[in-house]
Amino acid sequence: MVIAALPEDRLEPTNFELAVAGIPEPGPGQVLCRTTAITIGAGQRAGLQGSASYAGAPKVGGVMGGSGLARVERSNAAGFDEGDLVRAPTGWQDYSLHEPAQLEGADAGVDPAHLLGPLGVNGLTAYFGLTEIGRPEPDQTVVVSAAAGSVGHLVGQMAKALGARVVGVAGSDEKCRLLVDELGFDAAVNRRSDDFRDEFKAATPDRIDVYFDNTGGPVLESALFRMAVGGRIACCGVVSQYDTASPAGGPRGVPGLLVNNRVTMQGFLVFDYADRYDEARTEIGRWIDEGRLNPRTTSYDGLESAPQAFVDLLAGVTVGTTVVQL
Amino acid sequence: MVIAALPEDRLEPTNFELAVAGIPEPGPGQVLCRTTAITIGAGQRAGLQGSASYAGAPKVGGVMGGSGLARVERSNAAGFDEGDLVRAPTGWQDYSLHEPAQLEGADAGVDPAHLLGPLGVNGLTAYFGLTEIGRPEPDQTVVVSAAAGSVGHLVGQMAKALGARVVGVAGSDEKCRLLVDELGFDAAVNRRSDDFRDEFKAATPDRIDVYFDNTGGPVLESALFRMAVGGRIACCGVVSQYDTASPAGGPRGVPGLLVNNRVTMQGFLVFDYADRYDEARTEIGRWIDEGRLNPRTTSYDGLESAPQAFVDLLAGVTVGTTVVQL
Repeated sequence: MVIAALPEDRLEPTNFELAVAGIPEPGPGQVLCRTTAITIGAGQRAGLQGSASYAGAPKVGGVMGGSGLARVERSNAAGFDEGDLVRAPTGWQDYSLHEPAQLEGADAGVDPAHLLGPLGVNGLTAYFGLTEIGRPEPDQTVVVSAAAGSVGHLVGQMAKALGARVVGVAGSDEKCRLLVDELGFDAAVNRRSDDFRDEFKAATPDRIDVYFDNTGGPVLESALFRMAVGGRIACCGVVSQYDTASPAGGPRGVPGLLVNNRVTMQGFLVFDYADRYDEARTEIGRWIDEGRLNPRTTSYDGLESAPQAFVDLLAGVTVGTTVVQL
Repeated sequence: MVIAALPEDRLEPTNFELAVAGIPEPGPGQVLCRTTAITIGAGQRAGLQGSASYAGAPKVGGVMGGSGLARVERSNAAGFDEGDLVRAPTGWQDYSLHEPAQLEGADAGVDPAHLLGPLGVNGLTAYFGLTEIGRPEPDQTVVVSAAAGSVGHLVGQMAKALGARVVGVAGSDEKCRLLVDELGFDAAVNRRSDDFRDEFKAATPDRIDVYFDNTGGPVLESALFRMAVGGRIACCGVVSQYDTASPAGGPRGVPGLLVNNRVTMQGFLVFDYADRYDEARTEIGRWIDEGRLNPRTTSYDGLESAPQAFVDLLAGVTVGTTVVQL
């Protein structure tokens, strides 16, 4: 699945097109992988904005980037054998060639939904943003935006596991019900409500100690006005600004409210914590085993469904981790 | 000097008026002080915006707040004797009553300009913002806004003492010359220049590791676009937004650039470091003794000049610490 045209405004399925190519031959030291599933994250939309992103400039005609699970089809590298399950930056394609350093072995005995969700990039992002930047203490208030999303629904549950009071902000009443009734959030607020500001305030009576920001935009601005003294904001993503030709201005309250309330805003990328993934997966795995993490997945079938899955994700249609099964 | 009217737009001397009252009597445990000098800081303008500030709501008819040096005139408190030099939240008045906890002894053998500047609140603000939040490493680039101001001119010199490369942003060519020619800054950029963005970029070829922000507004926005990966922004003040009826929107680049470059923005108030003032003053005193800190003061004579001093400060007329001698 290649990029047919870079989106100038809202992404559409026609920004992509299927292309057929031969199965490549692995060179010396290389590994040929066959993709079994890919995950899609909202941050990939930022990648399609070109130079504004950490992901590098996208190219029309190039295979759409992405990561997922794959089986080793042929290996010329020590440590990887035919049939091994691996995590790989497969891109949106059936077959991909990799150097061993790009691959990470995955436990075939674990539910693939867990490998792609809480034990994958989304889960690691939630974990490090929450524990390294948010650092909630028991009974502190943690707020997360895009709370029913791939990262958000894990952040909230992890924060509960750490003993915090958790408030989610999501884009529909249905998602809010899911968060409270099924995922254990203490409260949830629909950002599209006419009374959002009042409802948000009512849901954070003790103000906000940790705000995990996946959206930027108006929700970030609202959170800034509710931060407690010494509060921390983990800046993870800016989904409110990805899928548009006209990004909004910055949030009012920066930097004045940061000064008055001694608030810290810190941006992060999960890749900076790569040397600690194993440690995080051990802890996350324990939470799964204990039933504290209830991961959700929205699945699509077939590579041809990936563009629609991406559009749905950006429109807020999907819940939890968005996965395309190949 | 009392508040005659709260400013609705730009501050004017007529927002204040002189009032005459009797010298108060110290009650049991109280200390009567006679003010010898007060300092004025831009942050006090935020205090006049009422509820938006950490300084509490101002009152028309009340004495304008502020801190300075004073002599103990009469004392009913152990530890303070007539004639002692003290730091005190005197307000803009000749005589003030204090509880002992509000007072701090000051060394009468030290130049009062040093006590009010680098060893006073401005110097402590510069010190803690720079060393606790900025944490520059040798040869890293430190940028400071309002660089010729009370805090800024000390931040830059302290950063030089710590081995950093220092760039100041100030409001006139004359101030920029002062910073480079007399205070040892490596470069300085006039924020009012038509080519500010280009000049700012040229002055930060290795991007910015530490940005000490006294202004918010357009300079903050420019700095955000020049931050290095892992950069730190110490949010100290928002002088660009204090003296106006129509505050600007937030800076573009928040939070997107914070994420991409893993930048931390942290607001702080010097009062949170009160238990470490002695440690800081020892280090700052050493820098003064070694000739690394060259503090500047703009002095005014008489309480009646305080309103004009404040207006001048906000208009960028003053350099270094603004002091009113009583």
